[in-house]
Amino acid sequence: MYTATSLNLTRPVCDMATPVETFAWQPLDRTAGDLEGQLYRSFRDRILDGTMPAGQRLPSSRHLAIALGIARSTVVQVYERLKADGYLLAQAGSATRVAAIAAELLPLAPSPTPGLSEPADPPEPARLFAPGMPDLTDFPHASWARYLGARARSLRIHDLGYGEADGLPALREAILDHVAKTRGIFARPEQVLIAPSTRAAINLMSHVLMRPGDAEGNVAWMEEPGYATAQALLRAAGARIVPVPCDEAGIDVSRASGPPPRLIYVTPSHQYPTGTTMSLQRRLALLDVAQAHAAVVIEDDYDSEFQYGSRPIAALQGIDRTGLVAYLGTFSKIFAPGVRVAYAIVPLRLLEEVSAALQLQGSVVPIHIQAALADFMRDGRLRGYIRKMKALYAARMAASVAALQRHCCDILRIGEGAGGLQLATWFRDPHVDDSAVAQHLQANGFAMQPMSRFHLGPARPGLVFGIARVAPAHVEADVARLAALLKSCGGQSLAPGSRETLAVSTCHGLPQG
Amino acid sequence: MYTATSLNLTRPVCDMATPVETFAWQPLDRTAGDLEGQLYRSFRDRILDGTMPAGQRLPSSRHLAIALGIARSTVVQVYERLKADGYLLAQAGSATRVAAIAAELLPLAPSPTPGLSEPADPPEPARLFAPGMPDLTDFPHASWARYLGARARSLRIHDLGYGEADGLPALREAILDHVAKTRGIFARPEQVLIAPSTRAAINLMSHVLMRPGDAEGNVAWMEEPGYATAQALLRAAGARIVPVPCDEAGIDVSRASGPPPRLIYVTPSHQYPTGTTMSLQRRLALLDVAQAHAAVVIEDDYDSEFQYGSRPIAALQGIDRTGLVAYLGTFSKIFAPGVRVAYAIVPLRLLEEVSAALQLQGSVVPIHIQAALADFMRDGRLRGYIRKMKALYAARMAASVAALQRHCCDILRIGEGAGGLQLATWFRDPHVDDSAVAQHLQANGFAMQPMSRFHLGPARPGLVFGIARVAPAHVEADVARLAALLKSCGGQSLAPGSRETLAVSTCHGLPQG
Repeated sequence: MYTATSLNLTRPVCDMATPVETFAWQPLDRTAGDLEGQLYRSFRDRILDGTMPAGQRLPSSRHLAIALGIARSTVVQVYERLKADGYLLAQAGSATRVAAIAAELLPLAPSPTPGLSEPADPPEPARLFAPGMPDLTDFPHASWARYLGARARSLRIHDLGYGEADGLPALREAILDHVAKTRGIFARPEQVLIAPSTRAAINLMSHVLMRPGDAEGNVAWMEEPGYATAQALLRAAGARIVPVPCDEAGIDVSRASGPPPRLIYVTPSHQYPTGTTMSLQRRLALLDVAQAHAAVVIEDDYDSEFQYGSRPIAALQGIDRTGLVAYLGTFSKIFAPGVRVAYAIVPLRLLEEVSAALQLQGSVVPIHIQAALADFMRDGRLRGYIRKMKALYAARMAASVAALQRHCCDILRIGEGAGGLQLATWFRDPHVDDSAVAQHLQANGFAMQPMSRFHLGPARPGLVFGIARVAPAHVEADVARLAALLKSCGGQSLAPGSRETLAVSTCHGLPQG
Repeated sequence: MYTATSLNLTRPVCDMATPVETFAWQPLDRTAGDLEGQLYRSFRDRILDGTMPAGQRLPSSRHLAIALGIARSTVVQVYERLKADGYLLAQAGSATRVAAIAAELLPLAPSPTPGLSEPADPPEPARLFAPGMPDLTDFPHASWARYLGARARSLRIHDLGYGEADGLPALREAILDHVAKTRGIFARPEQVLIAPSTRAAINLMSHVLMRPGDAEGNVAWMEEPGYATAQALLRAAGARIVPVPCDEAGIDVSRASGPPPRLIYVTPSHQYPTGTTMSLQRRLALLDVAQAHAAVVIEDDYDSEFQYGSRPIAALQGIDRTGLVAYLGTFSKIFAPGVRVAYAIVPLRLLEEVSAALQLQGSVVPIHIQAALADFMRDGRLRGYIRKMKALYAARMAASVAALQRHCCDILRIGEGAGGLQLATWFRDPHVDDSAVAQHLQANGFAMQPMSRFHLGPARPGLVFGIARVAPAHVEADVARLAALLKSCGGQSLAPGSRETLAVSTCHGLPQG
């Protein structure tokens, strides 16, 4: 037990002068460096486990240094440290002794010494069509490095302090400027709050909107299928999740059942994971329902910049006139996930509360990153990079869709691919076990995710493709191989004879009904 | 405005070779040390306020060194720093000149963002003795910028992805290496989790440890007085706070009453805000109690590096043999708050759960900052900076303590000031309303915080001083003025006649009882 008995100096447990050789057990490893630390831990452990009993006299630093063949100053330092920490007692003019504190300590196994052996990266297997990651091959390392370096040099002392937890004003303005132009956002700069990730922003909003102990009222409507992480975050904040069906026009609030929501989480630009765009009718219906229930809508606009062909439909936030919509954006897809910047544009009536929660939770972004990103945006660099990547992604999406139509049309119904970095597909056979198929494909280098993974209720089986890192030159061959695998792996349920929906004339579109 | 107009070299504002004597105004204080910093600031301020106009030629480093009677290398360093920061221009073969950036400067220092309408900072009022902030005057901007820039250039594509939510392995190892040596921490690198702030780390731990709906069991013991933000975070996670009294030896768990804890939050190195160090006896008693209740101890070691005189006592985590202690550290005090890096070293048995919560909440730190900081630590740069700042802080603490003893000893009992960036004092008169006094002082440029602010229950009134940004040359005069204010402001309750405790013979120490 960790009981603290004080050392009885009048009757020490052991008062004999201990020969210095007794201390030459120290298992010092000269090649490992930090002899002082090694010696310190060695003494400490022996004092704690009772090998060196209370009252035991230590040899002089000079004698021990000679016995161990190390510098005397090292021994002096170790003794000082052990005294400062209470393991040794020293009184002027008398010998250094072990203090009595450790006598009754439990001899429990200590944590292992830091090994500092970073596990080598396993060779990354081919992960064709893995969703979630943008392509970072053309990330502008050199110019981003210049911006970061320049900002790190020019930051004032004042900037390096705790600053505003809400974020750097310059970045909040640059973001607002960007989304006002590209997404039709209406807000003031102070409504833009900076966070390290969309997850952190959802977490923040959930904790502000969910009330502890109000199990009845803490209802969140979520898209079905939808973003599982958002569901997990809301659940952790105490929400009851009510799945609301999505079709080709997005979430259909007229089909929602159950208790009224306090929060509705949606991905209107590119529904996650189906990629469909919410129609204007559905947007207005959603805002109507939210207003009726005084619910807050979280609009997660994670990759709306990548819209191919048509101009992206403006954000829900911009058509909301009642201050119900909190808009979330991120730099993970349009710049790089590792930069770790996202933001929430919060309705004015919630601003004070959300800002206070952000301040309290300390989920903040380094000033250097914020300042450099603000400059990078102001100088049009981000716009240029997005433009470049959008053209690449459009070509990859088109190549993927075309190849899938050529090779897999009899097995899969294929989403439109009008935007975003994901492409949804559905098995024509509704009895396919998409998890099992995905697992089989995984073993063959394909990394699509099964559609059932995004469902709370029963799922129409399908596969979600990531197209960001597709190589157009190889996509034809990859998809041909995929088709062969799909035809072989499914057994009966994927065999042509069992297909129920071959009558559908197009390869495109979400499953009906 | 810091509009970056490039210097028009064909029509320099001032092209005369300025005689070196003109620069002999530098008010260098040789006794204060850091001549380089003094000279740098002196030039910088004159460039910013227009005393040295754009285009002005500087004397050669050799001539200026002779004129000022200092080493030439010092002048060279200062010139390099001013060039790196953009105050000076130099082209090969021509003289060093003042850059044009300062031409349209407001008398206030606005942000240097080009073309950005960032509102100018209001002039910061003198906030003498404000606690909480380290001194960032000597922050190594140039070398940190080099590390950041170099890392931003060399990061691989793979690094820019979502990465490990737990943090970059290289940084986790560098941190562990540092705290193993300086704080006696025992852990494996994978136990080190990176977070953007201590607040985020406390928030994370609270959400893992508190169980929704278990109002009875969600008990957290906190130091009294203690860190109000930690209390607020725990409360937000559903904890019932039980204050446990602290005295000169730290938290006294034998005086705890009420239900058993699930979590105990402590600041053993420098108790916040009293600055006292928890004794070894108390540490062992605390671990005993934690073990008996299977409670987790959160050890917040926020500024233990700054220990003056004696060697810092090793961390609680290192003597814990039962895996009960979660150790929190931060770079806010030893580097800069704006860098936004902190960490938690989590007991193995909690690791999986805490890591999953961190991953879910997305409270993550940009890869560029993590990678640059790992390099900065590995190269010993952080160690060097800490060493330098520790010497400065030690001098400031000593000067503050000495001045307070001379001028305020009859009104205040003064803490030891053995470490940290705060100095606690208590009014000898226990009836003083410290909030009212602090408010009155605030109006006169003093920013100490009232001790009552750190108490949940009744407080012994006092003032908490921040010493990090004290100017030793002015502290005597500042404290004399403070003493006069204290004597005038308190009215009856501060008048000598009402002092009950003048019999106490020393100025030092916490209030007894």
